[in-house]
Amino acid sequence: MFDEIQTPAVLVDIDVAKRNIERFQAYADAHGLKVRPHIKTHKLPAIAEMQIDAGAVGITCQKVSEAEAMVAGSGRLDDVLITYNILGDDKLHALVALSKKVRLAVVADNATVIDGLAAAFAAAGGTLRVFVECNTGADRCGVGAPQEAAELAARIASAPGLEFAGLMTYPPVGGTGKVQAFMTESKALIEAKGIAAPAITSGGSPDMMSAHLAPVTTEYRPGTYVYNDRSLVARGVCGWDDCALTVLATVVSVPAPNRAIIDAGSKTLTSDLLGLTGHGHVLGRPDIAIDQLSEEHGRLRAEGDIGLKVGQRLRIVPNHACVVTNMVDALYVVGKDKAPELWPVPARGKII
Amino acid sequence: MFDEIQTPAVLVDIDVAKRNIERFQAYADAHGLKVRPHIKTHKLPAIAEMQIDAGAVGITCQKVSEAEAMVAGSGRLDDVLITYNILGDDKLHALVALSKKVRLAVVADNATVIDGLAAAFAAAGGTLRVFVECNTGADRCGVGAPQEAAELAARIASAPGLEFAGLMTYPPVGGTGKVQAFMTESKALIEAKGIAAPAITSGGSPDMMSAHLAPVTTEYRPGTYVYNDRSLVARGVCGWDDCALTVLATVVSVPAPNRAIIDAGSKTLTSDLLGLTGHGHVLGRPDIAIDQLSEEHGRLRAEGDIGLKVGQRLRIVPNHACVVTNMVDALYVVGKDKAPELWPVPARGKII
Repeated sequence: MFDEIQTPAVLVDIDVAKRNIERFQAYADAHGLKVRPHIKTHKLPAIAEMQIDAGAVGITCQKVSEAEAMVAGSGRLDDVLITYNILGDDKLHALVALSKKVRLAVVADNATVIDGLAAAFAAAGGTLRVFVECNTGADRCGVGAPQEAAELAARIASAPGLEFAGLMTYPPVGGTGKVQAFMTESKALIEAKGIAAPAITSGGSPDMMSAHLAPVTTEYRPGTYVYNDRSLVARGVCGWDDCALTVLATVVSVPAPNRAIIDAGSKTLTSDLLGLTGHGHVLGRPDIAIDQLSEEHGRLRAEGDIGLKVGQRLRIVPNHACVVTNMVDALYVVGKDKAPELWPVPARGKII
Repeated sequence: MFDEIQTPAVLVDIDVAKRNIERFQAYADAHGLKVRPHIKTHKLPAIAEMQIDAGAVGITCQKVSEAEAMVAGSGRLDDVLITYNILGDDKLHALVALSKKVRLAVVADNATVIDGLAAAFAAAGGTLRVFVECNTGADRCGVGAPQEAAELAARIASAPGLEFAGLMTYPPVGGTGKVQAFMTESKALIEAKGIAAPAITSGGSPDMMSAHLAPVTTEYRPGTYVYNDRSLVARGVCGWDDCALTVLATVVSVPAPNRAIIDAGSKTLTSDLLGLTGHGHVLGRPDIAIDQLSEEHGRLRAEGDIGLKVGQRLRIVPNHACVVTNMVDALYVVGKDKAPELWPVPARGKII
């Protein structure tokens, strides 16, 4: 199986990825929802271009350096939302520079961030579109009440160098109802101040097919949907055949009848659990649990005889696709009637 | 705090690392134990050289590509043990090439791996030193019984292109007694076959200061000891002042009185738990728990008012230092009376 590829390796089935992209785009088109995929999952300009070609209006990135890498890697990514509170002179300078290349927006959930953005863009003579991030139950970033959202919207609208772009949220799984309520109330409060709220953007792959149940939403930012993973299969969102990203691994030891060791550990599969037990799904072997990871070893257990041989290759669907992409400088793109191609991952490791 | 460094960033206090290296070397010297540090923790040729300068006999690597990067990054790393079952033509060719540059050894725990190594080295006209890996309770790789160790030792000793180097184990925490028993019995069985067992190598930072309680051991391979981390503090092995590696992060949001968000998430701190609750220790703030990580967000919780401001910087001791090193292309070396220096991490991401 893929004998020409040294293991461990990350494989992306481009046909499956394309099908996943088109499936959600068709849903969004049917509901009049704009799509702005989060590139964290693939970190590949060429796949972002596939998403744009399918109908996406732009991309979402999480950090300035990630956006820079994506834009530098493609001549066609010209509309970028960075869903992060950006602070600090170095990052603000980079943001100003990026704003001269693409249509750019960011988010903010506090006055310190807004004032920093305003100072940088006013000094540079530019204008930056800023969304207010709202907490709809994930309890990460985001203002906690519609009244706060309206206050920050007004602060942005009156700040030199800034333009209020709308409201953004990253809801928890099952949070669609909360999105509708929070955003509707916030929008009304903002409009009551005489400020328009041009866009309401939400995200998350688990609930993406019910995004229309929060009709206040104008734009959606799915990320993992392009590859899918074990966490989404566990949630019933997709099947194993819809998982585009797999880790190819080799059995390096079968030290006991019910135990085998593969050459993929936490440096490939990562330790992300996302609420699951075990560290991935061995395709074709639902009886096997990956019950422990060291950095370069994955331990496989079966109830009875594991039936694996040293040298045998396995494909594993990881718990969480996005973080696996981040572990490798390059991955193999595979597909029907296509020799595997090694692609660098330009936006890997961009944390600042 | 380190205002010239963009966050998130990994910092290594070189003075603390040096003290950690010297402390274990002094212990090992006092007990007649050779030291062969595992470079997985730092992945930096310059720190490996510090370990050699302190008295280490060589280095340990986990994969061939990691060893290649370390050797290429230093003119002085000339004795390498790769503690992994190596399989596959590409890796075997790389191993033969590496054996022409340094004194090299590997491990094996099964006949398939031994036969592959023998075929490659016999064909190349070279000789490779091979240890038998033994399972002393960690239930990862390793033969499960001394009799099996003796059989594989004989297979290595009689194979063309190979030389039996001794026995290797990576014991579980608290496994020192098991190491002594397993290795003593295995060594006797091997010597009864007329085969010498020149070296017995064990490892693991948690129990390194009691390595002398398994006197059969001739060589020790500590890894994490060079930096230490929250897992070793939790085990009582060291204090916070002994932790050389920290993650520098900025508070980007304080959305609720008892909650703050930092710009370091699982892409920096990693999701490794090592049995702990939470994702790291905020230096100087033992009251704060890092209770959730997304890829670029770390969530901090306090019982009462968290008392943090947007823009404030924090230093975090991660749960597991080794995996954090692997997340960054470069890190900052800091020290007393020393401006921070950006060092690339040449052996990062070497998984094959």
